[in-house]
Amino acid sequence: MGVFGSIRVLRLRAGFWESIKSGLLKDDTTQVIETSPEPQVEEPLPEEFVLIEKTQPDGAIEQIIFSSGGDVDVYDLQSLCDKVGWPRRPLSKLAAALKNSYMVATLHSIRKSPEPEGGDQKKLIGMARATSDHAFNATIWDVLVDPSYQGQGLGKTLVENIIRALLQRDIGNITLFADSQVVEFYRNLGFEPDPEGIKGMFWYPKF
Amino acid sequence: MGVFGSIRVLRLRAGFWESIKSGLLKDDTTQVIETSPEPQVEEPLPEEFVLIEKTQPDGAIEQIIFSSGGDVDVYDLQSLCDKVGWPRRPLSKLAAALKNSYMVATLHSIRKSPEPEGGDQKKLIGMARATSDHAFNATIWDVLVDPSYQGQGLGKTLVENIIRALLQRDIGNITLFADSQVVEFYRNLGFEPDPEGIKGMFWYPKF
Repeated sequence: MGVFGSIRVLRLRAGFWESIKSGLLKDDTTQVIETSPEPQVEEPLPEEFVLIEKTQPDGAIEQIIFSSGGDVDVYDLQSLCDKVGWPRRPLSKLAAALKNSYMVATLHSIRKSPEPEGGDQKKLIGMARATSDHAFNATIWDVLVDPSYQGQGLGKTLVENIIRALLQRDIGNITLFADSQVVEFYRNLGFEPDPEGIKGMFWYPKF
Repeated sequence: MGVFGSIRVLRLRAGFWESIKSGLLKDDTTQVIETSPEPQVEEPLPEEFVLIEKTQPDGAIEQIIFSSGGDVDVYDLQSLCDKVGWPRRPLSKLAAALKNSYMVATLHSIRKSPEPEGGDQKKLIGMARATSDHAFNATIWDVLVDPSYQGQGLGKTLVENIIRALLQRDIGNITLFADSQVVEFYRNLGFEPDPEGIKGMFWYPKF
């Protein structure tokens, strides 16, 4: 056994994956997957779909749209980060991070005016993104929802749908690093802290 | 403050980064980095260099080479994984994971024969790889060293050098998930478990 196996236990969990009946996950340990009978898979979700639609007092219709297509304007994202009070990051790095994330999931509010010429107003109200090796693992970062849209379960829906989109791409090992105050939030979504004693660790520079 | 901020505390650590004097890390919070005086940076390491060179009893010279260039044959990697007892993974997924890792660091043994016509023998003896958003964060996976080369500090050197290579690319947030039995190994390399209460979490499918 390799003593340097930070990921070893995860691979031992392959037996665990094998017992999954949902068909969403293929068995990572199978060498010859081609000859296996195709499991029943859930109907793939579209990249973009309406989560909520409601009519406002002025007759306008507001839709909340989920998308896993990664279409985010970096200025809109900075503005959203400002709203939740995150320290600013250089826009060039933020743009690079978006470009090089495996998945960028968003929530947009689209307000359709009741006036015939009124047009639509589209606003970014939530985001989550994931880095990945495109094969085995994904790590979710930067989950945020506009404070004026919080309290209606949109954060939960956002994370549930990014999980679903990752599973549909056959990513079996979905991880994240949760602040202490959101550990319960993620636990309710099916995330387990320190499973089998595995520790999330951060490198700190020595002085 | 966003309640869904899995990464919020990490960003608060920007103040922490600001205090770093090594010059290896740029300050993520600075919007206008162009006008700042260039910090003293360490001489960049070459992508590939000799870690150890020793003469064997038969006069052959063995070099251990570190590389962050990602040149790994997937069959060689599978053979190395077999040696440390990891369950097999589909080669096509392993190849995809290598291709889509931000950094693949390797240790090779090169044996130079004492015979003039003997030629060199090159063997993969260690690997570590990292996923990343190419901007803020990197997560190290699959750290392994050939059992017959363990016990001489090569795992430590491998991880130290992948950290250094990531820092040189201005990746400030380096993370991993450590099995319980290797937490101390990584702690000695400067990794902290659960800093500020941040928890590593894994998604488990519900039945």
